[in-house]
Formats: sequence, structure tokens, C-alpha cells
Amino acid sequence: MPILDREDDVFVLDLGAGENRFHPDWIAAVHAALDEVEKADGPRALVTAATGKFWSNGLDLDWLFAHADRHEEYVVSVHGLLARTLSLPVVTVAALQGHTFAAGAMLSLAHDFRVMRADRGYWCLPEADINIPFTPGMSALIQSRLTARTAHEAMLTARRYGGTDALAAGLVDRVADEDSVRRTAVETARAQAAKAGPTLGTIKARMYASVLETLRDTAAPLG
Amino acid sequence: MPILDREDDVFVLDLGAGENRFHPDWIAAVHAALDEVEKADGPRALVTAATGKFWSNGLDLDWLFAHADRHEEYVVSVHGLLARTLSLPVVTVAALQGHTFAAGAMLSLAHDFRVMRADRGYWCLPEADINIPFTPGMSALIQSRLTARTAHEAMLTARRYGGTDALAAGLVDRVADEDSVRRTAVETARAQAAKAGPTLGTIKARMYASVLETLRDTAAPLG
Amino acid sequence: MPILDREDDVFVLDLGAGENRFHPDWIAAVHAALDEVEKADGPRALVTAATGKFWSNGLDLDWLFAHADRHEEYVVSVHGLLARTLSLPVVTVAALQGHTFAAGAMLSLAHDFRVMRADRGYWCLPEADINIPFTPGMSALIQSRLTARTAHEAMLTARRYGGTDALAAGLVDRVADEDSVRRTAVETARAQAAKAGPTLGTIKARMYASVLETLRDTAAPLG
Repeated sequence: MPILDREDDVFVLDLGAGENRFHPDWIAAVHAALDEVEKADGPRALVTAATGKFWSNGLDLDWLFAHADRHEEYVVSVHGLLARTLSLPVVTVAALQGHTFAAGAMLSLAHDFRVMRADRGYWCLPEADINIPFTPGMSALIQSRLTARTAHEAMLTARRYGGTDALAAGLVDRVADEDSVRRTAVETARAQAAKAGPTLGTIKARMYASVLETLRDTAAPLG
Repeated sequence: MPILDREDDVFVLDLGAGENRFHPDWIAAVHAALDEVEKADGPRALVTAATGKFWSNGLDLDWLFAHADRHEEYVVSVHGLLARTLSLPVVTVAALQGHTFAAGAMLSLAHDFRVMRADRGYWCLPEADINIPFTPGMSALIQSRLTARTAHEAMLTARRYGGTDALAAGLVDRVADEDSVRRTAVETARAQAAKAGPTLGTIKARMYASVLETLRDTAAPLG
Repeated sequence: MPILDREDDVFVLDLGAGENRFHPDWIAAVHAALDEVEKADGPRALVTAATGKFWSNGLDLDWLFAHADRHEEYVVSVHGLLARTLSLPVVTVAALQGHTFAAGAMLSLAHDFRVMRADRGYWCLPEADINIPFTPGMSALIQSRLTARTAHEAMLTARRYGGTDALAAGLVDRVADEDSVRRTAVETARAQAAKAGPTLGTIKARMYASVLETLRDTAAPLG
């Protein structure tokens, strides 16, 4: 389960050591961590890291198949997590040490910056291959953070991007060796810790107003 | 006139050996080809190619001047072709062996990917030079597929991009020798043939929802 | 105060030799210059230059603090200047010989193209540092002219971009030596002088319709 730690001005949220899929309890734990980050005072920033082979593999499809009647509620909660991360009033950096797939990839895009391991692990939106169309809110999020060309290729072809390709396509901002992914992310976050506060929150909320509105529109198609 | 052929999983639509302008009959023939591609079953993708010096020179201005009273209906039909191509539920690749101008250039942007001949032929939006402003729908289409910088330069300066410049500006995804433009496009399309189907259609329709709405809004300015 | 000059087809507007902040009188003088450019006939283009260490340092905060009761009216007038520049029916080029900050940077983005001095001077949006969130209209303008990645970094981190970095990030289109910034801008403008006219105005107005609407929406948050 996600665990929050603090190194001076930088909170480090570790998403876990498994596939780190979005189980309802996992989502609740991430929200609790974000609550703590938001409630804290003074300069601060957030790094979202993980341990092992995966950063996050996205939706918890096992749980979802076992709770088909809660499908709509579940998607609303995933949208809520993406929207909250996108508009968090502190600078956020995703430290992608492992595979970052599907809704996991979307959660990484909801961060302000991404550092990815250079030599192993893939960033991938497999939805076109597994026959799950992006919801309008997910589509809006992805398109708002990428060039039209990269969004089109990533969303239609389900291409798996290694670190170097992900950097070239603008999916991530930096690549690093396995040993330095988290440290690079922490340094990036620390340099922006003084930005934390309501002004930053307003800037993000206005930049992504239409994305946030689509993510929070429970009347839009959810599947 | 446009002719549809099939090479295994890849349909190849040849737009013609002339200027391949959008005469009403030509538009109808393209639609008939797209009908066939849509109706087919199983893995499939589309390459839109042409023969000779032009891929397409855009609107059929001769026909339009001779039928001024049908101007509005004509623009609606052009918008319809662009919208349908943009949301086709198979992966589409434009094989630009020759000049690709004006509405021809827009039709190329409605494809998922573009391969352009490296050493001859231009991609150009001459509208600012010939005093025909882009309709809001055309503007939305062009802007949705390019970086802001490339769209601005292409739409305001009517610059003619050769293959290498078009690649650098992100107007096309690949360049190739004269002999291999079509083959490269077919290979690109074949690799994505398994994506064909309603999920891909939904992904495209949601990504470009606002563009499609503007293209189909017959109340918007058409000239 | 701003002074308008003409070199054949190219109008050169010099924003001044000071910090060239947006005092109401300064704004009025810029509008008077734009009136003259708009009213002129025939081929023409506009270069907006300045003299000294600054191109423009943005809002006149001294004036604004002394006239707190006119805050809303002031922001409306700044929005109006940005909107008018963005939709001017002639090609516009900003010749950035010195610091270009905050609303000054936004005014530069409202031009069609930017040439920046390579070796000195910064382009910067310091709003996140000085606790002044971008208005929705300013946010829309900035985001409409930059890649998502550059807009995100520039707006959230208040990074100061020197000429070379600004070129790499796509904030400017060209860099030049101190001596040739203005000349390069004039040459760029002259090459597009024949484009002046209502078609160009319509193309710009349609490309940036939603930005212009947001800038002109006096009901939107202004602070």
C-alpha cells in the first residue's frame, strides 16, 4: 500500500512494491497521503515513486470484474484522483522506476514533471489493444499534456516507449539511471518547493479548467 | 477517379493521377471506398495514395466557380469528408508522393499518419495567399494535429514545406524515397491493422470531439 | 513612450527605452500606433521593438497599487491589448532585444513571431513566484502559443529563459546577435507584408477564437 515519507521539503509517496493497481483501498490511501501534503505548511513538493518492477499498472481489473455493479462509481473515483493530482497546489514529480501503464501512465501525466528510468521499463497506453476506450476525461488529460503527434501515436498505437523514446516524444522530462531516478525527482521537486500554495493551485486549475471539468463531469461517458 | 485496392490487410486508395481535386463525383467515390473499408471485417488499415505529381490540390475551384449557388452545400460535403476520415475506425496513413495543397493538405492531416516523398513535392496551406480564409472547422482540424508553432506558421505564411522541412515541423511522420513512399505507408498501416474496430473509432471520436463538432456544425461560417 | 516609425512596408513600433511597463498612457499610445498600422493601405507588417535593457517588464504595478479601485478596468484594458495584437490583420514580429517579463512576455506571445537576442536578456513568466495567478484569458493566450510542456514549465516554475533556451523551448522562433535582432525581425516581417488584409485577420480570429473570447469576457476572474 502507498506510504508517505518526508525528506525536508519533499514528501515522497511510495505507491508500493507490486503492480500498484488502483484498488479502492489503494486510491483511499493515496488520497490520505495527498491530504497530508496539502495540509502541511510552508515550502513543500511531492515525489510519487514506487519500488520494484512497476510504477503502476493502472486500473484494478480483477476488482472491477468482481464488482461490475460498482463500475461507474469506480471510474468516478479514478477520475477524481487524476483531477486532484493535476490540480494539487504543490509541484509534483513522478519518479518512474518501472512499468507505467494505462491509468498508471495517466496518473504520471497528472504530475507536473516525470523522471523515467533510462534503460528498463515501459510507458504505455495499451487501451487500443485491450479494447477499453479512453473516457472523455482521460482523453482530455492525456491530450492536454502532450503534443498532438505524441498523443495520437500513444493513444492509437499502444506503443511501448522505453525511457529514451519517452524522452524524445516528450512523455517524460528527464531520464536517469536506475539508482538515480528517485534522487533526480527529489532534486527537481525540492527546487520548486517554494512554489507551494494557493497561487500555484489557481494557476493549475485555470490552465486545466476544461480537463478538470471533463474529469469531474459524471454525466459524461464513463466506459 | 479514386480507386480502391487491397493488399492483404491493407486497403490502398489511389486518389488519381491528376490534380485530384475535390469534385463532387470524386468526393462520392472516396466515400464509396471508405464505405467498403468500414464494412470489411477483421484486421485492416487504409493507405491513401495517388499517382503522378499531385497527391491532391484541394477544392475543385473550377467546379465551385461554375456552381456558386451550391457553395454552402459543397463546403458541408468537404467538411463531411474530413470529419469521416478523421474518425475512421481503422488506422489511416497518407502516402504523399506529390504536391499536397490546401484542402488536400487538410485531408492528409485527417489521416492518422503521413509519409512524404523526401526530395520533391510540397505540403502547403496557401489560403493566406489566395484570400480564402480557413473555415472554423478546417482551422480546428489543422490546429488539432500540429504544434501551435507549426500551425501558426503554416496557416499564416502559406509556406511550402518540402519533405525534410515537413518532417522537422511535424507535418509528416516519415519521409521516404520516391520508390518507397507507398511501401513505407503500407508497412506502417499493416503494423496497425489489428487495431481496426469500434474501440479505435471511439478513441478517435473522443480525442477529436470538438473538431468533429465544428466540422459538422452547418451553422458555422462556411467561407 | 511608444513611437511608431515606418521602413517601406514595415512599421516599427519602439516600446520605449525604460522598463516599458503597461501604464494606461503607454497602452493608449500602443493602441494609437496599432490604429495607424491598421488604417494604412497595401502591403505592410509590424515589428514591435524596444531600446535598452528591457523589451517590456509587464504590468505597471506602481500605478496599479496607487489605483486599486481601477484594478478591474486596468486588467480589461490589458486583455484588450493582448487580444487586439493577437488578431491584428497584418503579420507581427516581436524583436526582443532585452528582458521580456510577465505581461510583457504575454504581449510577445500575442505576436506572430519572436526574434530574441541570443546572449543576454531573459524571457520569463514570474507569476508563480510573485503570487499573481494568470487570469484565465492570459492562461489561454500562453497555452495557445506554446507546447503543453513548455507552457507548463514556464507557467509553474517561473524559469528565466535565455535566448538559446527560449529557442529550444519554442518560446521564440529565432535568435540573433544584439546588433541584428531588429534587422532580423524587420526582414521576417517584410517577407510577409503582402499577407496584410482582412483574410489574414479572419484566419487569426478563427484560429484563436476561444482565446479571444476568454480575453474579452469581462465576467471571468480578472485577478
